Amino acid sequence: MTTTLRRWIRALETDEREIIEVRRYLHRHPELSFEEHCTAAYIAERLRDYGLEVRTNVGGNGVLGFLQGGKPGRTLAFRADFDALPIQDEKEVPYKSTVPGVMHACGHDAHTAALLGVAGVLSRHRDELGGKIVFLFQHAEEKPPGGAKAMIEDGCLDGVDAVYGLHVSSEIPYGRVGLREGPAMAAVDAFTITIVGKGGHGARPHNSVDALVVGSQLVGSLQQIVSRRVNPLQPAVVTVGVFHAGTAFNVIAGKAKLEGTVRTFDRQVRRQIEDEIRLLVRGVCESAHADFEIDYLNGYPPLVNPSSEAGRVRALVGELFGSEAWIDLPQVMGAEDFAYYLEAKPGAYLHVGARNDEELTHYPHHHPKFDIDERALLAAGKVFLSLAAAEHSS
Amino acid sequence: MTTTLRRWIRALETDEREIIEVRRYLHRHPELSFEEHCTAAYIAERLRDYGLEVRTNVGGNGVLGFLQGGKPGRTLAFRADFDALPIQDEKEVPYKSTVPGVMHACGHDAHTAALLGVAGVLSRHRDELGGKIVFLFQHAEEKPPGGAKAMIEDGCLDGVDAVYGLHVSSEIPYGRVGLREGPAMAAVDAFTITIVGKGGHGARPHNSVDALVVGSQLVGSLQQIVSRRVNPLQPAVVTVGVFHAGTAFNVIAGKAKLEGTVRTFDRQVRRQIEDEIRLLVRGVCESAHADFEIDYLNGYPPLVNPSSEAGRVRALVGELFGSEAWIDLPQVMGAEDFAYYLEAKPGAYLHVGARNDEELTHYPHHHPKFDIDERALLAAGKVFLSLAAAEHSS
Amino acid sequence: MTTTLRRWIRALETDEREIIEVRRYLHRHPELSFEEHCTAAYIAERLRDYGLEVRTNVGGNGVLGFLQGGKPGRTLAFRADFDALPIQDEKEVPYKSTVPGVMHACGHDAHTAALLGVAGVLSRHRDELGGKIVFLFQHAEEKPPGGAKAMIEDGCLDGVDAVYGLHVSSEIPYGRVGLREGPAMAAVDAFTITIVGKGGHGARPHNSVDALVVGSQLVGSLQQIVSRRVNPLQPAVVTVGVFHAGTAFNVIAGKAKLEGTVRTFDRQVRRQIEDEIRLLVRGVCESAHADFEIDYLNGYPPLVNPSSEAGRVRALVGELFGSEAWIDLPQVMGAEDFAYYLEAKPGAYLHVGARNDEELTHYPHHHPKFDIDERALLAAGKVFLSLAAAEHSS
Amino acid sequence: MTTTLRRWIRALETDEREIIEVRRYLHRHPELSFEEHCTAAYIAERLRDYGLEVRTNVGGNGVLGFLQGGKPGRTLAFRADFDALPIQDEKEVPYKSTVPGVMHACGHDAHTAALLGVAGVLSRHRDELGGKIVFLFQHAEEKPPGGAKAMIEDGCLDGVDAVYGLHVSSEIPYGRVGLREGPAMAAVDAFTITIVGKGGHGARPHNSVDALVVGSQLVGSLQQIVSRRVNPLQPAVVTVGVFHAGTAFNVIAGKAKLEGTVRTFDRQVRRQIEDEIRLLVRGVCESAHADFEIDYLNGYPPLVNPSSEAGRVRALVGELFGSEAWIDLPQVMGAEDFAYYLEAKPGAYLHVGARNDEELTHYPHHHPKFDIDERALLAAGKVFLSLAAAEHSS
Repeated sequence: MTTTLRRWIRALETDEREIIEVRRYLHRHPELSFEEHCTAAYIAERLRDYGLEVRTNVGGNGVLGFLQGGKPGRTLAFRADFDALPIQDEKEVPYKSTVPGVMHACGHDAHTAALLGVAGVLSRHRDELGGKIVFLFQHAEEKPPGGAKAMIEDGCLDGVDAVYGLHVSSEIPYGRVGLREGPAMAAVDAFTITIVGKGGHGARPHNSVDALVVGSQLVGSLQQIVSRRVNPLQPAVVTVGVFHAGTAFNVIAGKAKLEGTVRTFDRQVRRQIEDEIRLLVRGVCESAHADFEIDYLNGYPPLVNPSSEAGRVRALVGELFGSEAWIDLPQVMGAEDFAYYLEAKPGAYLHVGARNDEELTHYPHHHPKFDIDERALLAAGKVFLSLAAAEHSS
Repeated sequence: MTTTLRRWIRALETDEREIIEVRRYLHRHPELSFEEHCTAAYIAERLRDYGLEVRTNVGGNGVLGFLQGGKPGRTLAFRADFDALPIQDEKEVPYKSTVPGVMHACGHDAHTAALLGVAGVLSRHRDELGGKIVFLFQHAEEKPPGGAKAMIEDGCLDGVDAVYGLHVSSEIPYGRVGLREGPAMAAVDAFTITIVGKGGHGARPHNSVDALVVGSQLVGSLQQIVSRRVNPLQPAVVTVGVFHAGTAFNVIAGKAKLEGTVRTFDRQVRRQIEDEIRLLVRGVCESAHADFEIDYLNGYPPLVNPSSEAGRVRALVGELFGSEAWIDLPQVMGAEDFAYYLEAKPGAYLHVGARNDEELTHYPHHHPKFDIDERALLAAGKVFLSLAAAEHSS
Repeated sequence: MTTTLRRWIRALETDEREIIEVRRYLHRHPELSFEEHCTAAYIAERLRDYGLEVRTNVGGNGVLGFLQGGKPGRTLAFRADFDALPIQDEKEVPYKSTVPGVMHACGHDAHTAALLGVAGVLSRHRDELGGKIVFLFQHAEEKPPGGAKAMIEDGCLDGVDAVYGLHVSSEIPYGRVGLREGPAMAAVDAFTITIVGKGGHGARPHNSVDALVVGSQLVGSLQQIVSRRVNPLQPAVVTVGVFHAGTAFNVIAGKAKLEGTVRTFDRQVRRQIEDEIRLLVRGVCESAHADFEIDYLNGYPPLVNPSSEAGRVRALVGELFGSEAWIDLPQVMGAEDFAYYLEAKPGAYLHVGARNDEELTHYPHHHPKFDIDERALLAAGKVFLSLAAAEHSS
Repeated sequence: MTTTLRRWIRALETDEREIIEVRRYLHRHPELSFEEHCTAAYIAERLRDYGLEVRTNVGGNGVLGFLQGGKPGRTLAFRADFDALPIQDEKEVPYKSTVPGVMHACGHDAHTAALLGVAGVLSRHRDELGGKIVFLFQHAEEKPPGGAKAMIEDGCLDGVDAVYGLHVSSEIPYGRVGLREGPAMAAVDAFTITIVGKGGHGARPHNSVDALVVGSQLVGSLQQIVSRRVNPLQPAVVTVGVFHAGTAFNVIAGKAKLEGTVRTFDRQVRRQIEDEIRLLVRGVCESAHADFEIDYLNGYPPLVNPSSEAGRVRALVGELFGSEAWIDLPQVMGAEDFAYYLEAKPGAYLHVGARNDEELTHYPHHHPKFDIDERALLAAGKVFLSLAAAEHSS
């Protein structure tokens, strides 16, 4: 480890309290995807405080901070996402969400706090920095079409040589860091199905077309896609996350609205599942005198960590935390619009352990009680610092 | 027809414009069951304007108006209900509901306007009236436990000799009036089922218990109650009117809430269906690692028109509108808490035609476009006047 | 009761042992619908033994015996059916079915034995008989299109003035007899649905179209017809009685065969259900890449006992067994091709109690353990004798 | 390639007509698993004709032939399976199955014919053979518990140093040969579920417990195991291959029998699926007043080709057919009780291409029209000869 990196790390450790405070502030004030106006303003303000050049409203609510180092080198982009989820925070902590039904249940608050901390440190050490860093704060990671695509189209990767991002994880013990080489995370699609029946009095089913019953039948039939129609050696998920039908116990629902997501790795399977969903919706609705609308959105592509970068990052992590800290991760069905950046540029997407012995840190991501071991904030920051420091010699 | 009745009818016809205005006012300002504070106040105010003795907050939002006639006779209660439904008004008329998601989609506005009209006429002719009329304006007919039971417990039928009510109907042509002798309307029960699974990330079904899928399976299984488990010669309906699960397309729903209604005529079938629902919920949830809660409410009993009164009412209607106006109605699965009044007192519950050649009047009750032929307001009023006039000679 | 009838009844009682033996012989040797060659031959032989004129192969395996009385009078037809069911006899009695998978699980053996007994008695008393009796032994009652229609087309009712039939019942206590006036039994339809998918290796669902899964989904969807689509005040049954798919545990079934029955009283509901079944089959199969064939047979019409005859039969039964023996039966969803006879001629179709305190007689019809109280044989015979005797005076 | 091997191959080519005739004879006379008495006798007779020492009834219908070479060397076992499937042969060829409902739809006839051919050649060249060959003809590969386990327990691998087997494949073009290193084929389990309801008349569902409807619901629910409960990154298949319920269209089925198979690679997933099936069966049956029995058989383990042997075999195949003939196969969900041999001894399990341009060879295994390019017989034989010849130098 170089003396420079050692110095930067000490600076980060000094800032730990502040970084945690930033994370908790964000945790208390979550904003839904595409509605993160206050969060974006908050980030922009801090970046300006650090003396960075700032660009806002990048592809939506995205924020870019530019830091030109005092030495020559490549341009790296470091990305953190900052949107929250429509989940009610159910844990009892001082930094519990103050917004009903909205919560940082995936750790984006941690990513943003860590990267802001890195920006703070590097801004104070810019003379030692080789090349240039683009601090890429991205909105709307949780909700296709996501923010990454729009930010790329709005130029966030212009002039960038490599791009790095990371995710804290309640499944990985604190102290460990890793990634999966090659195809690592799934492609994500989103669909909304509206079933249009005919409402009516709850006591007269024969005069109505019961959209709630049709929707239920459809949910059952959709299970067959993964269980019977897709090659069992091709990982795939079809989740219906939302089912809303009806307004009163004694009124037959004339409409049912289903929203869901599809996860795949293989391009052909991805297309097959869309076709199967369309076929099932049509068949089930036609068998029940119901009409329908399908809104099908092809979201993020699969996230692929290129082999070249994977090895390099592994070495850096080994240097930082010891070689036993590294973990070769398995594929996951989760999706990430970081995939778009890796379609455009070399780079890597890492996972940073944030689980400890306390139950509080054991809940799965997107759970109403999700939380992290906050030491992961520094671990994440150190990874970014290490990548920046490596540009000296590269 | 007596001269007195003829005179009262002419008075009612003179008031037609005003009665229609009252109905439209109520239609524009619907209030949900148990929340009808403004409607109740409006009714009370009009009754006081007519010089009636008024009692408010009867068993909740119920309103009673008392009119003592100038001649001796029995005490009759005339009932109109005045609550609305949680349905979005989708018709385009000047008197469209001004309250989003709430609507008089069942005609209670008409019942109330007609009975207020009758109260107005009789208050001006009280000297000719034999006996006493209790104008019984009832809240919360649509939503078990309903208003009738509480109003009876609060004394609304005290001293009453017979009780009459009616319903406008979009299934009966304007000009026709009738009832079904004996068991006419079904018993109604209401249930709420909450399925408690385990929420989680939409890409990780194996870490979650998908309450939405369990709920869908349950809706499918509930169909077997009527199709396979109940005697096919015993009419029965099991409707799930509400299915709400999930908050985001990519988050597996940890809870699903189903609300529904059960309609039966037979006491044993009524109990059987409750047992079957409980058995199905438990079995389906246990097969899926899910917990559950069931809230099951036994609502209104079946409505039975006693034979003695049925014949008498038929004769009066024949006298009013001609014998060809009478219609012997079939049983219906709809329920009415008027059933409680008929458990307590003699009387009758009639249906008054409100359908004409225009499509606007053809929508089923509880439909977002439900409307009536407003001439039915006078027809309904005349039926009440005829019942009042019959007390002279009785 | 006339002396003649008293004499006939005594004669029948004398023959009781023989009648029971005939019933048990038939019970041991059941034959499926349309395959009752031995049973028909057996009946014809006995009728010839009694000296009756016999006609065989009437409309198939039907057998007619003609007995001309010594006195003037009308011509009555008495009908008994004689086919058995594809059910494995599971009871342990000496007269258990000797044919694997075939069983008299509905009591047709009893009908035939009783009517043969009546033929025996009347043949010995033909001089006392007024008019003429046609003993109408019908094949294939259990399986649409049934034997009745073909026997009528083949002339079995030619010259007949009235036609009577009866059914023993495990739901009615021995000693009681009755019928339902008006529409008494349902119309029956039969359907066969073949789902054609694509067979394949059990480990490769994606290369197959799993007809077994499609069939299962269809069975689930068919429940909605009765639960949601038919007027709940219109009795209806949709039963799938047979589901056969697949040949090996590890081979995906390329075909599934479903057979079922539909019961209704109302002509429009009958047509609606056929339409709904066709719509569901098409929708479900199309949603699953499967083909299908539907074979839909409109079977027997509803059975209607005319009021005129109902009263007369009631009086005769009262005279025979006492007025407290009579039972006004409710509608049932069971079907009978006796309905065809009553479309063509006056008459009546009765039910004769065959249940006693022993569990053996409590199983429902078509149950693998179905059996009767054999005293019902004489009770049934007496009803026929009484009808014959009544022709004297009529 | 050694001269010896070259000589052996020429001998095999000379026998081609006879090998094809053997295959066709077997194809015409298929026998179900565990019933292969004639096939076993046929094999034993041919082996004796070749002068081999023969052992019959090994672990059931298994047959062993022992050939001691004239030179020193290891003992190899070559395995061919010889049972057929309960599938109706639907192709039109002179060698079509003569047994209704039974068919060699998986190519075991080819394996046996090829290995008999090899035995014939080597018996004529035994002096040139190094070591000893055990010709291992195995019964009952298709039906767990299979023949392999019992044959091993009966000593078929005693003294064997390595064991080789192969499968012809309609998915691999003729001329190509390959295997998958490591976990190659899935574990297989088999289950039989009997649902016990209560039979009855098709018109009286309320007096019955409809096992057919319960079974259908269960099939639907079982889909959730793969779609919702198993980790999507763990390949798994749950197939219900057989659904038999009911005997007549108008009799409600009192029993339903489901048979199926489960395929997995991971031990924990294997156990989870068994648990989930048991949980679903219990919950669904209890929710429907039905009883049940589950017979769950843990069948073959996953088949794992050890790396050491994989490379060696690849080299031999390259020498035989050219290096471009080799194909690295993907994992498949199919199972093989050859897995037991590879748990006990080193060895390899190969796949030999049997598909050509004609549609006849394109049907999947277990399809009613399955057939092969018969040139694959020689290809398979050559692989065995090459393995035998390699023992010279080893």
